[in-house]
Amino acid sequence: MLKAAILGFGTVGSGTLEVLERNADTVARNAGEAIEVKYILDLRDFPNEPHQERFVKDFAVIENDPEVSIVIETMGGKGAAYTFTKRSLEAGKNVVTSNKELVATHGAELLEIAARKNVNYLFEASVGGGIPIIRPMQRCLTANHLTQITGILNGTTNYILNRMIDGGLDFATALKEAQELGYAEANPAADVEGIDACRKVCILADIAYGDNVAPEKVETEGITAITLQDVAYAEQADSVVKLLGRTVLQEDGTFYAFVAPHFVKKSSPLACVTGVFNGILVTGDMLGDAMFYGQGAGKLATASAVAADVIDCAVHKNKRRSIGWGDGSKNLVRSLDTFASNWYIRVQGADAADKLAQAFPNSKVLEPVQAEEAAVLTDVLTTAEMNEKKAQLGNVLGCMRLL
Amino acid sequence: MLKAAILGFGTVGSGTLEVLERNADTVARNAGEAIEVKYILDLRDFPNEPHQERFVKDFAVIENDPEVSIVIETMGGKGAAYTFTKRSLEAGKNVVTSNKELVATHGAELLEIAARKNVNYLFEASVGGGIPIIRPMQRCLTANHLTQITGILNGTTNYILNRMIDGGLDFATALKEAQELGYAEANPAADVEGIDACRKVCILADIAYGDNVAPEKVETEGITAITLQDVAYAEQADSVVKLLGRTVLQEDGTFYAFVAPHFVKKSSPLACVTGVFNGILVTGDMLGDAMFYGQGAGKLATASAVAADVIDCAVHKNKRRSIGWGDGSKNLVRSLDTFASNWYIRVQGADAADKLAQAFPNSKVLEPVQAEEAAVLTDVLTTAEMNEKKAQLGNVLGCMRLL
Repeated sequence: MLKAAILGFGTVGSGTLEVLERNADTVARNAGEAIEVKYILDLRDFPNEPHQERFVKDFAVIENDPEVSIVIETMGGKGAAYTFTKRSLEAGKNVVTSNKELVATHGAELLEIAARKNVNYLFEASVGGGIPIIRPMQRCLTANHLTQITGILNGTTNYILNRMIDGGLDFATALKEAQELGYAEANPAADVEGIDACRKVCILADIAYGDNVAPEKVETEGITAITLQDVAYAEQADSVVKLLGRTVLQEDGTFYAFVAPHFVKKSSPLACVTGVFNGILVTGDMLGDAMFYGQGAGKLATASAVAADVIDCAVHKNKRRSIGWGDGSKNLVRSLDTFASNWYIRVQGADAADKLAQAFPNSKVLEPVQAEEAAVLTDVLTTAEMNEKKAQLGNVLGCMRLL
Repeated sequence: MLKAAILGFGTVGSGTLEVLERNADTVARNAGEAIEVKYILDLRDFPNEPHQERFVKDFAVIENDPEVSIVIETMGGKGAAYTFTKRSLEAGKNVVTSNKELVATHGAELLEIAARKNVNYLFEASVGGGIPIIRPMQRCLTANHLTQITGILNGTTNYILNRMIDGGLDFATALKEAQELGYAEANPAADVEGIDACRKVCILADIAYGDNVAPEKVETEGITAITLQDVAYAEQADSVVKLLGRTVLQEDGTFYAFVAPHFVKKSSPLACVTGVFNGILVTGDMLGDAMFYGQGAGKLATASAVAADVIDCAVHKNKRRSIGWGDGSKNLVRSLDTFASNWYIRVQGADAADKLAQAFPNSKVLEPVQAEEAAVLTDVLTTAEMNEKKAQLGNVLGCMRLL
């Protein structure tokens, strides 16, 4: 019998308890022994929960209980979660988390402590919710150089974009609907500004390329500026607008890493990733494309990934899994300035068509969807070149890369 | 430095050598040491290959070389491959394979020998080619009961069906094209009759439900009877025709396992799996749906999965991974007779419409695509009920389940 403690009894924390208890049979069979949640740490009271005795408010109780070998951190954030994770690892306990912000920011350091203490720090649920992605990358794609990672990593923004595409709602209305359905937070910034996707790109890049990528190194653009006109132009290009987190590896081992909305061709498997689902397309030099698709969020889906990591801790008791990456000193992330791509650009003004024709001689002209504007699909340009063109043109209403 | 031997220098065997050599850096980093292919067993001569000295024709050379700790079986079939695999395991060597036929038929026995000799028998490449599926099921979905597995498991048939759907080719023409492109064998029976998909269903079920499923227990129907008319009716139902391998778990732990062509709704992620790609949709009671998508075949894609297993053997040297399933004595596979579903059925004859209306009162009538026939989408019926109706009706031109 293994004893675990849950830190933070919110959506994922309570979901993890539910998974471990409802599927106790499967969990025990796969873990090799039963797993019991001995403590639940939360500052709030949960008078209606059974087993009141296991609710505690003082982390030291967990830290000092040698019986607890697995700590499940589902608090989120980089404050107490960071401190408690460090103290748990230092106390020789395995830690499992769904906290993408913490892994993206302090993952390298925490994995180093885990290595030193010969325990596991696992975070499958930090990217793609319930979708297996971290472990497959670490265990199944090991004979490949991962030349590209292209992911729909945030279900909230994917839902909003889908409602704009299929439902004809504008951004504000689609966001409001997502909030009413509980898909978006009251403060949606982390989602709609791409911050959440950025953290996930960092974690994927850390694993794929072996050196820490700080979130501030990843140029991030959200979807707040996307309009129904952009969506209509995408349709003309036989594409859909998707917020993508991307890494693109170069010959020399450096790579581009960024988050931005794109025109995604309908023939791409990523175009089929609708609603709140996530899809992560990984391209290996030997494998070619593989996509991992599923619920990127949600209580039980995310909890099932957390629980799988708990089981993995049980299976690998005293056999630490060798995960880790450098401290970021290799500086592998390139500036986007030199990243080349085809683009969609939309400009306002009676003379917009002429200006675009001059600026982009080899471009494909799109049918204007309203008066006094024009839009084209350009030839291949670097980000720096496109930024220069935009500055010259002025009145740019929309601009996205094509995938 | 680990020494390996490749048995069978065909597509996958030579691809595995290429992956291990071209990506020797990644392989060594992830394996913790370099991996050298010391022997290649094949009865044919390969005069143009470098390192002629490593080509051998006598398996005993490999069997008796204590330096060889990993045997890569890419011969296929259940003959010599079976014997050599057993002898390798008995000799205390790890075995890695892409041989779905062997794993589906003798997997339980071979895993038992591996357990007894404390070595690994790994077969990630046996299902889904390069797509990570076996390991994610064993390591990432461990907190779930897998209520359904729904897979496009054979790239050849998926390509043929796609050409019928998008290209308007009839089955024979599409098959001929697939053969010319090297996607289908000269003798395509194993693919088009669903035998290959059946083997993969067996392996997935073995892992998901823990007891051996013999291929003969899995009702298997191929795509040889699919016509362009069926494809046209599917379009009316906003669906596409796909060959699916399925398992459906029941409350009591028994399950249905079968292979058959289906009408798949275009809104399903499986409908987006086109060309020679595979897609495996796994449904967990906690996770919900997750799909694994990629190249189900192809030299380097499959080889990258084989190479990942080789790396896993290196990582788990003397730490055998606990994989295994029962001998099949639990008899968990149910007869399809009681499996209920909505159906598409198409009948020939001037009075076909009336006969169908009588036989299926609550059905949705489809627009006939040629004279003297009729087709409907039925209410929910069990397989036994549908078989009875078909016997009564006679002149059945097409019949498929809906998904």
